Amino acid sequence: MSAISYVNGSYIDHDEANVNIEDRGYQFADGVYEVFAVINKKIVDYDGHLNRLFRSLKEISLKSPIANDAYLFHIRNLIRKNNIKDGLIYLQISRGVAQRDFKFPKNTKPSLVITAKNISMGAYDAKFNKGIKVKITEDLRWKRVDIKTLNLLPPVLAKQKAVESGCDEAWMIDSEGYITEGSSSNAWILNKDKLITTPIGNSILKGITRTSLIKALKRENVKLEEKRFNERDIKNADEAFITSATQFVMPVIKVDNIKIGSGKVGKYAHIFRKAYMEAIQLK
Amino acid sequence: MSAISYVNGSYIDHDEANVNIEDRGYQFADGVYEVFAVINKKIVDYDGHLNRLFRSLKEISLKSPIANDAYLFHIRNLIRKNNIKDGLIYLQISRGVAQRDFKFPKNTKPSLVITAKNISMGAYDAKFNKGIKVKITEDLRWKRVDIKTLNLLPPVLAKQKAVESGCDEAWMIDSEGYITEGSSSNAWILNKDKLITTPIGNSILKGITRTSLIKALKRENVKLEEKRFNERDIKNADEAFITSATQFVMPVIKVDNIKIGSGKVGKYAHIFRKAYMEAIQLK
Repeated sequence: MSAISYVNGSYIDHDEANVNIEDRGYQFADGVYEVFAVINKKIVDYDGHLNRLFRSLKEISLKSPIANDAYLFHIRNLIRKNNIKDGLIYLQISRGVAQRDFKFPKNTKPSLVITAKNISMGAYDAKFNKGIKVKITEDLRWKRVDIKTLNLLPPVLAKQKAVESGCDEAWMIDSEGYITEGSSSNAWILNKDKLITTPIGNSILKGITRTSLIKALKRENVKLEEKRFNERDIKNADEAFITSATQFVMPVIKVDNIKIGSGKVGKYAHIFRKAYMEAIQLK
Repeated sequence: MSAISYVNGSYIDHDEANVNIEDRGYQFADGVYEVFAVINKKIVDYDGHLNRLFRSLKEISLKSPIANDAYLFHIRNLIRKNNIKDGLIYLQISRGVAQRDFKFPKNTKPSLVITAKNISMGAYDAKFNKGIKVKITEDLRWKRVDIKTLNLLPPVLAKQKAVESGCDEAWMIDSEGYITEGSSSNAWILNKDKLITTPIGNSILKGITRTSLIKALKRENVKLEEKRFNERDIKNADEAFITSATQFVMPVIKVDNIKIGSGKVGKYAHIFRKAYMEAIQLK
């Protein structure tokens, strides 16, 4: 983790970056967040992430603590102060510090925290070339996961279950047997040249990387179907992927005991990554 | 709020009681909590709350950061240091500070925070004598609300909706039309001398006050049925109540537009409160 973080108006040493124990983010998960990738000192899909942040704030009736155009200023400052070339920006807004009570406090200023860290694109490439393994877990989450909130214990438990089974990600399955999405990514399969991913609704997050990839693939004339898929569809899949701001496009080579295609990273994984990387907006 | 709180081994001024921004309680709601009432300097139902805390920890694979018998020591210290006669103790354990990643960190010590505040028993009595109003809201929560976790944004939004409608509490309704529980309380109705409350399962928290009241009422020979109830049952109810560690037994006089019984606090409310108050364990 790099040394400087932003907390409620100040740039401070990360180790001393604190919030009060009665911040509603700490006691109620009463807040929202975004993660932005940084490539070559530029922010990936900034507008998409910022628009989703504003939507999340609106959905839980939370006001932005700073002017809308100040986010870019602070994120760029953190990229510079932490000397980030390739990295991640984490940004969280909570309902601020107030005496503990479920109902919203009055006249409390929301808290804003932004952190930055470096990532290695080489490590990403190595992971891409190997592909990842996925474990299917029950989707225990609340009914509004389309809002990017701090209510993250269910995906934390899903991810941990996956890791304990030697997997890299969890795909969550609903009560009807359909995959909704990954614990921190969207889920995709490719079946006979047709790409399939869960449609937008309250049961998945509308991934910014998902949206960008769909746009990019339209130009490539790839057939896409936004429909639910289940374990049987996974068994018939030729390739599979996850997408997220931190993983970009990442091929899946195994889901539980199901080997995907040949069990190696397929050709579409390369096509999709290339299309995505060429289409991303940098700011 | 009283002046002294406990944070990770230290007793400190509440205003300076901070945690790092990368505490997993802040970023992932990755933690559990309990609220203990204090009456006349004694802790109400201490053993019940502590046992539930240990169960919650176990359910999310979190280890207690202190010895099991140290909780009583620290809570009593806070009661003394803050000169609490009647009040509330809030206790939270999260998975500690680690670089942000969904999976569990290794070798990270969980964080423990305890706060204390005074409450007025006179204000409770006044509220009891008036009764409260309840709004029915959709139950949007995750599927393991039997664990008392920090994943509280859904009940926060439910309570806020209730408050904005001039109500004091929200009763959450599941997809089949049954009331599960309140946003921070268990829900009860009384129908022809029979008391009805939602049975224990993954869809409600096993309230400590709920358990104590059931025990107390057995001695009073009150007929109790643990079964689900819906809006039609509420319409037929003679009385209604909520129970929680902070509200004890609290009568409900209106649910949405349904006036309960005469619309005034009924005789069983008094009987139940008296039975509960006489039966509570003080430590």
